[in-house]
Amino acid sequence: MKISIERGALLKAVAQAQSVVERRNTIPILANVLIEAEGEGAQFRATDLDIEVVDKAPAMIERAGATTVSATTLHEIVRKLPDGALVTLTADAAAGRLTVEAGRSNFSLATLPREDFPVMASSEYQSNFTANAAVLRRLFDKSKFAISTEETRYYLNGVYMHVADGDGGKVLRCVATDGHRLARIDADLPAGATDMPGVIVPRKTVGELRKLLDDDEMDIAVSVSETKVRFATPDITLTSKVIDGTFPDYTRVIPQANTRRLEVDASEFAKAVDRVATVSSERSRAVKLQLDEDKLVLSVNAPDSGAAEEELAVAYSDERLEIGFNAKYLLEIASQVDRENAVFLFNSSGDPTLMREGNDQSAVYVVMPMRV
Amino acid sequence: MKISIERGALLKAVAQAQSVVERRNTIPILANVLIEAEGEGAQFRATDLDIEVVDKAPAMIERAGATTVSATTLHEIVRKLPDGALVTLTADAAAGRLTVEAGRSNFSLATLPREDFPVMASSEYQSNFTANAAVLRRLFDKSKFAISTEETRYYLNGVYMHVADGDGGKVLRCVATDGHRLARIDADLPAGATDMPGVIVPRKTVGELRKLLDDDEMDIAVSVSETKVRFATPDITLTSKVIDGTFPDYTRVIPQANTRRLEVDASEFAKAVDRVATVSSERSRAVKLQLDEDKLVLSVNAPDSGAAEEELAVAYSDERLEIGFNAKYLLEIASQVDRENAVFLFNSSGDPTLMREGNDQSAVYVVMPMRV
Repeated sequence: MKISIERGALLKAVAQAQSVVERRNTIPILANVLIEAEGEGAQFRATDLDIEVVDKAPAMIERAGATTVSATTLHEIVRKLPDGALVTLTADAAAGRLTVEAGRSNFSLATLPREDFPVMASSEYQSNFTANAAVLRRLFDKSKFAISTEETRYYLNGVYMHVADGDGGKVLRCVATDGHRLARIDADLPAGATDMPGVIVPRKTVGELRKLLDDDEMDIAVSVSETKVRFATPDITLTSKVIDGTFPDYTRVIPQANTRRLEVDASEFAKAVDRVATVSSERSRAVKLQLDEDKLVLSVNAPDSGAAEEELAVAYSDERLEIGFNAKYLLEIASQVDRENAVFLFNSSGDPTLMREGNDQSAVYVVMPMRV
Repeated sequence: MKISIERGALLKAVAQAQSVVERRNTIPILANVLIEAEGEGAQFRATDLDIEVVDKAPAMIERAGATTVSATTLHEIVRKLPDGALVTLTADAAAGRLTVEAGRSNFSLATLPREDFPVMASSEYQSNFTANAAVLRRLFDKSKFAISTEETRYYLNGVYMHVADGDGGKVLRCVATDGHRLARIDADLPAGATDMPGVIVPRKTVGELRKLLDDDEMDIAVSVSETKVRFATPDITLTSKVIDGTFPDYTRVIPQANTRRLEVDASEFAKAVDRVATVSSERSRAVKLQLDEDKLVLSVNAPDSGAAEEELAVAYSDERLEIGFNAKYLLEIASQVDRENAVFLFNSSGDPTLMREGNDQSAVYVVMPMRV
């Protein structure tokens, strides 16, 4: 194999590959990126056996072929090369080396044979549709904070992407929860997605997917089967196993009859929660909300270090209520609101509380109270 | 005590204080800042028993007095208060509480009695002089990278500030070394500094001092005794014990007769060293320099991961030389050069090498070679 490729294009492709590679590998070849040069371009493939990313980059191919080389080392080298450099990659299979040349720099890297590289088996996808990058970004960005990190409840370690019944018909829905809080985000159902099986997209895949979604105008080709999900731009294909488990019936958790309505400026609310939580120790971080006619008092009481109290002008006209929450959960939920006031709907101090952006039903959050 | 103080002024004073406070303290009061309100302003004092910082801030004093409160908590609270807020601090000695009020926010923090706060004993200073902030910044910024982290050689854990004989007479000199590399930086001797005893300024003090030196025009009052050093702006006074030890005779280490002269663009050199070092494992990181008529070849050979080579056009007219260095040391030294080309003076592959900025003798670096 011998190819020449512009440094910027190479850096982009290798950066995506090396981010999928796990830092610690018991199988040496999983630290490598598979470089394949055939036809009119080069492909860079990396995998951790659960996720596979394939990046295409334009390249001048002098001699077709393939090899594998350390993703991290290649990424570091390309990153440090001067902008605009033309990089030549030459594989010497007999010597087990890849030469990287650019200007007066010359690197020789150890390779492993392409035959040993585990390429993910191709699948039949039951559902193929196109979704706008901005739409997917909203679905995952607003739900991912609620993903559980508890490994024992592995079926909560991702975002449940599925087709659901919204108020105005079928929607594409993402849900995540860790049992303490839940996010439910809806988008219009893309054409062709009706028969999509519900899948739990793992946390790491959600993170890698995010890198494909920066361009608002980009259309993303989505393919879904019972076991795999694939997201593709013209240059990058991200394929991932989905979590083999059943996502719990979250609909029962979402309160339907909470009537006590608080409306508050989300940013002011978040800042106040953050301030009062300062006096609390890392562990508990319980914030008490005292609601009264158009008045909210936030308070924290940490016997050893101190106490804090802050008053906010709000819209509230129901009867007096005292309820406690984990400060971190309140902050995370309040920071999801980007357009309007936050609306909280309470029932009692022991029941789950619902939060949404204004009257928008397409992004709904639930948070469990804490005894304070 | 009851005082009102503008949030920005309070934040600045408390930020400086909390940075001196150590994160883990066996003596609880060392986590606190001593707030003293008397006369026309407030003073914020923090210490780790080796360093003491006192910050003055303008405040409206309603009731004079003093108390101590957690520096980290107070800093966090003030940081989160809105810009421009007026903050009122009220101490209730009987209850052992400090109330922090701003707008609708109200905090109550646990205090410890001012009497328990260890105030550093005042000293007689043998030497008092004024130095420009930009001058001090250069002296310490260019030398601190060479401070040793080895605790057994505690007398190398700081910058040796002393009066020395330069080419054109007495100079104010800062030297740091860890036995592998050395930095020697000179500045004109300020008036009144002639009798200054040489002192080893500890690493942490160098870091804290740096925060006083941002304003080029600022004059810093420096006081030095055998055991303490003090740096003061009109608002901030930083007092520190110096390291109780003898700095080794560094002059013997600085080669006087190195004649093989290499001149190279410092930034190109640093980038090339950084690139070739990529293939090496974290541990060794030895870079080989091969010098020939106006040509420098940098190379790294790491048997398991690969090899790298890069050629640079340089000015060199002596005989062929091969010499190896730790890549990190070369990088750190090259990054000190900010005005001119780097000039390296070699003797043989086993002897210390000298580096300076162009022909400027006021900043000289020495680095020991490595066998490659």
